[in-house]
Amino acid sequence: MTSDASSDTPSSPSSHGDGRHHPTGSGAPGGKRTGLWLVGARGAISTCVVYGIAGIRHELIPMAGLPTAFPPLSEIDLVSLDNLVLGGHDVCTRDLSASAGELVAAGILPADLVSMARDDAARYESAIRPGILDVAETGFRDLDPRAAALGSQPPLEQTKAIEADLAAFQADHDLERVIVVYLASTEAASTRQDAWDSTADFEAAVADGVPQPASLLYAYAAIRSGSPFVNFTPSIGANVPALIALAESKGVPIAGNDGKTGETLLKTALAPMFRARALQVLAWQGYNMLGNRDGEVLRDPNHKAAKLETKDAALRSILGGADGVGAGGEDRFHSQVSIDYVPSLGDWKTAWDFIHFEGFLGTKMSMQFTWSGCDSALAAPLVIDLARFADLAARNGESGVLGHLGCYFKAPLASQEHDFHRQMQALYSYAQQQPSKADQ
Amino acid sequence: MTSDASSDTPSSPSSHGDGRHHPTGSGAPGGKRTGLWLVGARGAISTCVVYGIAGIRHELIPMAGLPTAFPPLSEIDLVSLDNLVLGGHDVCTRDLSASAGELVAAGILPADLVSMARDDAARYESAIRPGILDVAETGFRDLDPRAAALGSQPPLEQTKAIEADLAAFQADHDLERVIVVYLASTEAASTRQDAWDSTADFEAAVADGVPQPASLLYAYAAIRSGSPFVNFTPSIGANVPALIALAESKGVPIAGNDGKTGETLLKTALAPMFRARALQVLAWQGYNMLGNRDGEVLRDPNHKAAKLETKDAALRSILGGADGVGAGGEDRFHSQVSIDYVPSLGDWKTAWDFIHFEGFLGTKMSMQFTWSGCDSALAAPLVIDLARFADLAARNGESGVLGHLGCYFKAPLASQEHDFHRQMQALYSYAQQQPSKADQ
Amino acid sequence: MTSDASSDTPSSPSSHGDGRHHPTGSGAPGGKRTGLWLVGARGAISTCVVYGIAGIRHELIPMAGLPTAFPPLSEIDLVSLDNLVLGGHDVCTRDLSASAGELVAAGILPADLVSMARDDAARYESAIRPGILDVAETGFRDLDPRAAALGSQPPLEQTKAIEADLAAFQADHDLERVIVVYLASTEAASTRQDAWDSTADFEAAVADGVPQPASLLYAYAAIRSGSPFVNFTPSIGANVPALIALAESKGVPIAGNDGKTGETLLKTALAPMFRARALQVLAWQGYNMLGNRDGEVLRDPNHKAAKLETKDAALRSILGGADGVGAGGEDRFHSQVSIDYVPSLGDWKTAWDFIHFEGFLGTKMSMQFTWSGCDSALAAPLVIDLARFADLAARNGESGVLGHLGCYFKAPLASQEHDFHRQMQALYSYAQQQPSKADQ
Amino acid sequence: MTSDASSDTPSSPSSHGDGRHHPTGSGAPGGKRTGLWLVGARGAISTCVVYGIAGIRHELIPMAGLPTAFPPLSEIDLVSLDNLVLGGHDVCTRDLSASAGELVAAGILPADLVSMARDDAARYESAIRPGILDVAETGFRDLDPRAAALGSQPPLEQTKAIEADLAAFQADHDLERVIVVYLASTEAASTRQDAWDSTADFEAAVADGVPQPASLLYAYAAIRSGSPFVNFTPSIGANVPALIALAESKGVPIAGNDGKTGETLLKTALAPMFRARALQVLAWQGYNMLGNRDGEVLRDPNHKAAKLETKDAALRSILGGADGVGAGGEDRFHSQVSIDYVPSLGDWKTAWDFIHFEGFLGTKMSMQFTWSGCDSALAAPLVIDLARFADLAARNGESGVLGHLGCYFKAPLASQEHDFHRQMQALYSYAQQQPSKADQ
Repeated sequence: MTSDASSDTPSSPSSHGDGRHHPTGSGAPGGKRTGLWLVGARGAISTCVVYGIAGIRHELIPMAGLPTAFPPLSEIDLVSLDNLVLGGHDVCTRDLSASAGELVAAGILPADLVSMARDDAARYESAIRPGILDVAETGFRDLDPRAAALGSQPPLEQTKAIEADLAAFQADHDLERVIVVYLASTEAASTRQDAWDSTADFEAAVADGVPQPASLLYAYAAIRSGSPFVNFTPSIGANVPALIALAESKGVPIAGNDGKTGETLLKTALAPMFRARALQVLAWQGYNMLGNRDGEVLRDPNHKAAKLETKDAALRSILGGADGVGAGGEDRFHSQVSIDYVPSLGDWKTAWDFIHFEGFLGTKMSMQFTWSGCDSALAAPLVIDLARFADLAARNGESGVLGHLGCYFKAPLASQEHDFHRQMQALYSYAQQQPSKADQ
Repeated sequence: MTSDASSDTPSSPSSHGDGRHHPTGSGAPGGKRTGLWLVGARGAISTCVVYGIAGIRHELIPMAGLPTAFPPLSEIDLVSLDNLVLGGHDVCTRDLSASAGELVAAGILPADLVSMARDDAARYESAIRPGILDVAETGFRDLDPRAAALGSQPPLEQTKAIEADLAAFQADHDLERVIVVYLASTEAASTRQDAWDSTADFEAAVADGVPQPASLLYAYAAIRSGSPFVNFTPSIGANVPALIALAESKGVPIAGNDGKTGETLLKTALAPMFRARALQVLAWQGYNMLGNRDGEVLRDPNHKAAKLETKDAALRSILGGADGVGAGGEDRFHSQVSIDYVPSLGDWKTAWDFIHFEGFLGTKMSMQFTWSGCDSALAAPLVIDLARFADLAARNGESGVLGHLGCYFKAPLASQEHDFHRQMQALYSYAQQQPSKADQ
Repeated sequence: MTSDASSDTPSSPSSHGDGRHHPTGSGAPGGKRTGLWLVGARGAISTCVVYGIAGIRHELIPMAGLPTAFPPLSEIDLVSLDNLVLGGHDVCTRDLSASAGELVAAGILPADLVSMARDDAARYESAIRPGILDVAETGFRDLDPRAAALGSQPPLEQTKAIEADLAAFQADHDLERVIVVYLASTEAASTRQDAWDSTADFEAAVADGVPQPASLLYAYAAIRSGSPFVNFTPSIGANVPALIALAESKGVPIAGNDGKTGETLLKTALAPMFRARALQVLAWQGYNMLGNRDGEVLRDPNHKAAKLETKDAALRSILGGADGVGAGGEDRFHSQVSIDYVPSLGDWKTAWDFIHFEGFLGTKMSMQFTWSGCDSALAAPLVIDLARFADLAARNGESGVLGHLGCYFKAPLASQEHDFHRQMQALYSYAQQQPSKADQ
Repeated sequence: MTSDASSDTPSSPSSHGDGRHHPTGSGAPGGKRTGLWLVGARGAISTCVVYGIAGIRHELIPMAGLPTAFPPLSEIDLVSLDNLVLGGHDVCTRDLSASAGELVAAGILPADLVSMARDDAARYESAIRPGILDVAETGFRDLDPRAAALGSQPPLEQTKAIEADLAAFQADHDLERVIVVYLASTEAASTRQDAWDSTADFEAAVADGVPQPASLLYAYAAIRSGSPFVNFTPSIGANVPALIALAESKGVPIAGNDGKTGETLLKTALAPMFRARALQVLAWQGYNMLGNRDGEVLRDPNHKAAKLETKDAALRSILGGADGVGAGGEDRFHSQVSIDYVPSLGDWKTAWDFIHFEGFLGTKMSMQFTWSGCDSALAAPLVIDLARFADLAARNGESGVLGHLGCYFKAPLASQEHDFHRQMQALYSYAQQQPSKADQ
């Protein structure tokens, strides 16, 4: 192990030949490394990303859960984990070890991994900068005062501050490029602004000091910097015509929104089965419970609304529509999703779904499932996958929305396809067109 | 309503123009109709097929659960339900109305449908002939004495008796062809015979009087008659090299084995999600409960063994193998399926599956589902679909195993593909190559 | 079968000696019969009461679900089902056969029972009078115009109208007494009035025309009439000091509130186990879904609030408090109950509860249950039980709140005991003190 | 903290006054301490007992899960945890720290507790002696050679060896008495011997060298030594007339069999509800999965049979019988329990139960539950409770079967009462008759 998360020395290529613990891949020509900038840098997902990458390097954990570590995706020439350098923004001051401690107590992070990755964590922590606070946020317990100060600046100043941090990170570590992944807590739902419809109007509004959601400014800053931007949250991010157009014109790849990690993943994997068998879904009720910081934020009805919107749309899209079961019965379809804060569950999202459906002879049947998943452990490897694919796209010169990454999102940008299996087909097709590692 | 299940008058083309209740389609040139011959003619599935077709004709029930009634499959020029004439074999004497009564009491068949379809049922009943009894069967309560007598005949005589019944049915109703669908209760597991490996050896063994499983003789008789043969049960049917080769040489389409209606359907729809997300399945436990005649037969350990074998293989095929999650951890995968007889459940199969899996950081998570489905109501429309596709294949001149029908089966003949979504893709691809109804 | 629901001829004592289908019992001295007056007479519960009693008389259904038909309660000398005469109030005009049809379609009422009990139903229907509408109700689809007219009368006129109906029913059928059971849809939560604290103030307020919730006026009218009053709903009913005192002074037995039929029954049967084992409940989440008229009414947030209040209190009472697990950890206990309207479920209430708890060594464990119960079929026999016990209490000269009936209610009047098993002990103790049928 | 598990110095009375972490109690007069001798001393339950007691002493864990630490049981003058000295027998050599490590990895034992209780564990370990091996056992991986040698001795020699160990333990630590709790893995089911019916015959058989199950010899040795004996397993233990009579004549308290910790606890807490509501249970299917050493042993069909027997009887006892729902329908009741070994679950027992029942109008309904419990963490505190109650009984001069402890067992000795709530009532009644700590 000759390289580390944020040392200034480019790593030598991985010397591990077994292919089991080390999904190798090239970096940029000349061995340059790629930065992975996590917004929400001290949150549970980021913590899992940091320790997870360290754990794989130290061969302390299996690669389970990381799709790009397994065929057929592992055959693509993606940036290796050794060539990823981590940093990020956060608005809170709490120490990464506090996040890690919670995850250990919850049985998610192994205690020995936290000990052995102490140096990796410290280097990452030294690369965290105060982020910008969303204009609508209030009452954070451990707010970074510099973040608070930034939050009261005009939007253009905020944007420039982000850009400066990204540029410094890239320079400090001599990075080929920096991938920005937005992981901050769900923002309150915000009123759509007319200016979001065109790049020019949006840039004028920002220049005029019209307040903007934080996720939008992060996306804006990343795209202006030429940094690929991935939004793993339901917040708005780059999902406005102004920014999609800007990404295209600037040649910057973007992807989002809202990582598909748990209940929605299941829904979009199961619903196609009901459609394929012409079973008419009468009701699909989804009850989610969680107890982490994300859950706390969702206690606020405004945040909850933003989150629920993306959770429900996928289902209707698969089951309904002109050519499916819904054709004759769409109006009978009843669907509901709720999210409740249950403190004792911590990061263990527990969801119960009940599906009532009608089959042949009008017979009413049902199925139900309970999902007990650890949200952060499900999300973190997808963040790594997305960073690797965004890096590849930038290397390939792809720009705008990366349509082949729809399988990772609850609300894929510029797409109506929610069927998980069709989304995977699209990704596998893309993968087949890429040069394989063997060719390098 | 000008046609009926088994009148001698070819029906006029359906005059229903709304496309909602009547999936139209052509029959053979000249308006000839197709016979659908159900082996296990008085069982719950056959009963649902008969009343279901009548109910759709009488517009008493929705078409939910019948995939070929919905796009994209409804666009193919399949034989219309109006042009299907029903008959079958059974070894029991009990009246179809007894089966229907049980299904009404269980909340599966609507009572008014049974009243209104009385004539359809009577015509069907008049076309039921005594079947042949599997050599290993004992203790049937209401055994047809003629079936019992047939059961003691040498296998060649049995085969010829079946052929004669098929020929008479075809002639009586002036049918273009007869599709044989095997729906009888699961046979006891039988020792594989060397003679099954070649057509010549098999035919010699039959001629020599070597006893054969009933399902094998039905398949043999159907293929000899030129009748497409579909095996919807886990019994052996045409699944021996001798018969597959015979079907190919005779130009007869065959399909099977074991209809994928419930828990296995769910498994093969869900397992690909775990694989796609690189989630390592540690254990997949499946507990099935049912209380119908099928369940009663499965109380016998020999019958149960035959059934369980096909239920488990699908899962291992999707999750394991050289290029999946299983690569590094296949030996950790633990899987088990059980089926228990719970009389009070009747035809309501209830299954609980527990899936234990490992994700990123080695975190162990779980999901569980409960499926409460009415087996017969799930199976019957698939039988109709299969008959329609077998008819199309015969019309097209296809022969041997119909590979595009794998999505209908737990153990698709001559295929290792169990991923339900890939199976559906194969069917949709086939469908796209067929002339559509609009072209006719 | 010599008697019927509302004939004018007193029935002869039951001549059925087998004790299996006919839980015999005496009526009043001289063979007088008891009236059972159902408020909400055309609702699903009332419909099940009417057809259920008829079904038991006609020996068409088992006595499952009716506690007073089984030992030890069957040993008490309760009024026999043959001696119950049924009538009631409703504000809707829809025919009882419409309610019955829905219950047949949902698989709850057997179709042949509806046919065979046609006369019983007709006699009952002829004894239904227009009820009074709660002042806060709006938008009923099939409102009885006479009920609407009554609803605009001053409260004292409404009370007198109810009393007149009860008196006429008693006289017409020569009844020893009339038991009033309140089964109408949950009222909107109403602001507590100071006048409810004393009988004199309340009577003055009614005389002055101060609007009152309908359930309160029904309770008032019943008590004034000397009719035992049972409130099976979460509406306020007799649950105010003014009416409890009036019932005591008038010597009238009362019982309520809110029948404990499903999820709450389970909670109060299970929670004592957690307490007995010192397992610290961290969270108890309850999600209820239902699709009947009751569910429709609960879509209104005001009605929902009234309902949820009684559902949650029971749990906290058993688990919390000074001497239980909660002692050191009550503040960690998180509980939530929701009720959602899922139209396709009809009368089939489906509930999922998730219980997160801490055991020895601080280990967090969980259990979850799904309850699929038919609300009306669970409630109806309890209504019969309550009417029989209320009749016995009146015969015994008991007055005020019947404390031994707490096991039937989610929010038992004048009681903090929610532990179902202790409630049953109280009922069994009461039963032991009663003269048994054998002594009569 | 002035005392420890096995020092020779009697502890001073606990000086903790808060009553939260230290359920105080007296020991014997003169401050003598009580020995707790665990058979199966290195198993998961024993490990949890040892670390749990240490954790409570060190105030590292809450007292959740320990019924005698909470009112009303905490009011009885039971031996304090500080006055319990631990030792035991085992046939395996593996280190206690290996057991502890597994429990830490499974998220059951907190890692810091294992560190802080290192001395307690070491002292306990030094008091573990090689046990006797059941005659039917084979293939233990880490068998203690001295245990193997003992296993080939005649039964009387084995008994004497156990007695000698108990006597040495008592003398070494100057103990008032020693409570023996049998926790070893389930024995294979053994054929009942006629000699078990009388003490004299049994003693003669042992003297004659007739091989006996190990659990029987442990019980015999304990009773001969005057040590109260508690059997927490389904093995036979003291459950033969010969030993029950001996315990009575020797004045020794005994209790057992088979700790009621999980699914059976739930069954016996829930089944009374169905009976109380006259809901006719048609089927109760219980599926258990576990992956610990106990589960491995249960893979052997003989061991499994012994275990399942006690799991099923409780349910039939509560639901069936002459005076309950079962009266008219017992023959319709179908029940089944299975236990499967699922390695990845480790100590996390997961059970799914499905209950099908009939209510009013013959309506069939269902409920299902999933229990995810950590077996050892559920069992360990009950072992402590039982030791404290056995100590009290000995102090009180009670002898033979302790009937008030039925709530702790799946198959309570000499009792047909399985209703958990009635069992708790019996325990609470006993508790009320005891002098309270306040009286001392």
